[in-house]
Amino acid sequence: MNQEGQELENELSKIIAETGIRIIGPNTAGHVSAPHNLVSSLFPLGKITHGNISYVTQTGNFVGHTLRYIMTAENFGVARIVGLGNKVDVDESEVLEYYAGDSETKAIFMYLESFKRPRRFMEIAGEVTRSKPVILLKGGNTREGSQAVATHTAALASDERIIDGALKQAGVTRIYKYSHLILAAKALSYMPLPRGNRVSFLAPSGAMLVILSDLCRQRWELDIPDLEEVTRQRLQEMSPPWIRMRNPVDIWAATTVHGIEYSYREAIEALMKDPNIDAIVLILLLAKEFRIHSLDFIVELANRYPDKLLYVTFTGVKKDMETAKAFLEPRGVPAFLSIEEPFEVLSVLNRCRKAMERHSALTRG
Amino acid sequence: MNQEGQELENELSKIIAETGIRIIGPNTAGHVSAPHNLVSSLFPLGKITHGNISYVTQTGNFVGHTLRYIMTAENFGVARIVGLGNKVDVDESEVLEYYAGDSETKAIFMYLESFKRPRRFMEIAGEVTRSKPVILLKGGNTREGSQAVATHTAALASDERIIDGALKQAGVTRIYKYSHLILAAKALSYMPLPRGNRVSFLAPSGAMLVILSDLCRQRWELDIPDLEEVTRQRLQEMSPPWIRMRNPVDIWAATTVHGIEYSYREAIEALMKDPNIDAIVLILLLAKEFRIHSLDFIVELANRYPDKLLYVTFTGVKKDMETAKAFLEPRGVPAFLSIEEPFEVLSVLNRCRKAMERHSALTRG
Repeated sequence: MNQEGQELENELSKIIAETGIRIIGPNTAGHVSAPHNLVSSLFPLGKITHGNISYVTQTGNFVGHTLRYIMTAENFGVARIVGLGNKVDVDESEVLEYYAGDSETKAIFMYLESFKRPRRFMEIAGEVTRSKPVILLKGGNTREGSQAVATHTAALASDERIIDGALKQAGVTRIYKYSHLILAAKALSYMPLPRGNRVSFLAPSGAMLVILSDLCRQRWELDIPDLEEVTRQRLQEMSPPWIRMRNPVDIWAATTVHGIEYSYREAIEALMKDPNIDAIVLILLLAKEFRIHSLDFIVELANRYPDKLLYVTFTGVKKDMETAKAFLEPRGVPAFLSIEEPFEVLSVLNRCRKAMERHSALTRG
Repeated sequence: MNQEGQELENELSKIIAETGIRIIGPNTAGHVSAPHNLVSSLFPLGKITHGNISYVTQTGNFVGHTLRYIMTAENFGVARIVGLGNKVDVDESEVLEYYAGDSETKAIFMYLESFKRPRRFMEIAGEVTRSKPVILLKGGNTREGSQAVATHTAALASDERIIDGALKQAGVTRIYKYSHLILAAKALSYMPLPRGNRVSFLAPSGAMLVILSDLCRQRWELDIPDLEEVTRQRLQEMSPPWIRMRNPVDIWAATTVHGIEYSYREAIEALMKDPNIDAIVLILLLAKEFRIHSLDFIVELANRYPDKLLYVTFTGVKKDMETAKAFLEPRGVPAFLSIEEPFEVLSVLNRCRKAMERHSALTRG
């Protein structure tokens, strides 16, 4: 910040001290409070869908083009968003404290480049994560990133290792991709956290099963457990005898006997009933030659087993994927356009569950 | 495979030996040769765009729903695709050798679960990678993945470390995500390999610059070098005095003075001329309120500096991103719908360049 900017900020601080007027910013596009239909952003945002996700972001752009992206690319809604800017008055700790008690807010996502009151932040975060997920994208972890911060806000690069340890203690879950601020929020807006890291997935392609299995093991810390014998038998009796059914589920052979809709529905129901499985990812083949009468069965299964997660992704015709996403998400089933995304999100949310459980166990009286 | 299947395969092998008839498969959807307008796939593929990327895939599904996805979601074309299936006759080594001499094939992408003749494969790959990129997704690297292979084909899990070393020696580049078979192919179909790992990127958001900088450093092995003084001065003179311009490029301030099109064009041209930069990623804000007269300037800049890479990604309104992608790609500029994707692809292609260079240096006489 140049000298003139600093002088203006000093004047602003003086006015705040003298009058008690509260200030968000400066250097922000504004804030959103969907329950009050209030938008202070200067950016043309269009209609904002009201939902249960709240954001705190140390950049004005989030309450700008990123929110515009969410509102045009996704179907979930937001409760509150604060673009903090330079934090001359209101800071991340105070907003987090407000969200903690906000009945409209189910999960909290943050983008921060610095902590104004680090100790206070960790105290409040430690309280909040007893009941609500707090997922943080922290910018400026590297020399390269913190140099980019320096052109952007006046934030100082902090000691990355100390921060990482303190965030763990406070039960906060870190993410590293900007797009996960959106994709993980979507998943949490529709469904709860997973109860564990045990996944099953169904695909019409052995190659996809193989690659996703490798990635579950190598990158995502997701288990692909053996199924209960009764589940395996159900999958086997649906399938031709030449294929040996197991987890993950090579569903295509069954569809050649029973059709796509029946095979997917029966297989998903068997997996939903299996006590070894916490989350199911359905990789759906969409093309007019393999027309599925209706995707209602996916919504029905998700509703009938609300403790388990059912995420959908696709292969086949791109346009049909967009149509399916637009059908499923307003009915509560998250859909992802790239096949690795639902797994990356499960991986984030499983870390979040673990962070919250560990934190609860440590702080229990 | 069950006994009946094995007996049928034995009979097939006998016929091949007796007659000299060549067989692809069995257990595959078929193959594609775009230059001959030949498609043997059983899967309804629709119209296939002719291009310069060839695939070898040990799964029938690639010449099925994955190709259908490419043809409906992307704009690049393919030359040849072989779905190997059980490889009772034609194997990956033979196809790779054919692609090596195929003038239609610029780059080769492979999905394999096993090597039928590992030594022969490495020999041929070592020849091919002197002139053409060979990028391999190898399935079954983990216990989980190889169990999934076992339900899928009769392939045996191979010793992962030995394979990894041999592939390195042969100049082959490994990838780990299924979606990279498509995204990296797209980038190579339009533009060459990067000459180095030095990137610049422009965004209308400081937060995006910060996060992408962190990821370049922590995950992607991409450098964000200092710019030449003349480049920095050009960026600075376009921008208001309160912002200090550097790499990565915080372009929004300049656009408030000169408009979006002028600012992006001038900044990209300055970066194209900078000898420190090998690749540029443009993060374009799209929304009707910030209407850009035409995206022609992006195509013109890409054509004027063919040795440097220019990839585009977006923020803002989703529908406008699809429109921009459909404009840019047929004109030779790859566009990505998620902001991390162009960097992941650059990271893969930079590893590919390094693998080919190292291999050339080692095998030079």
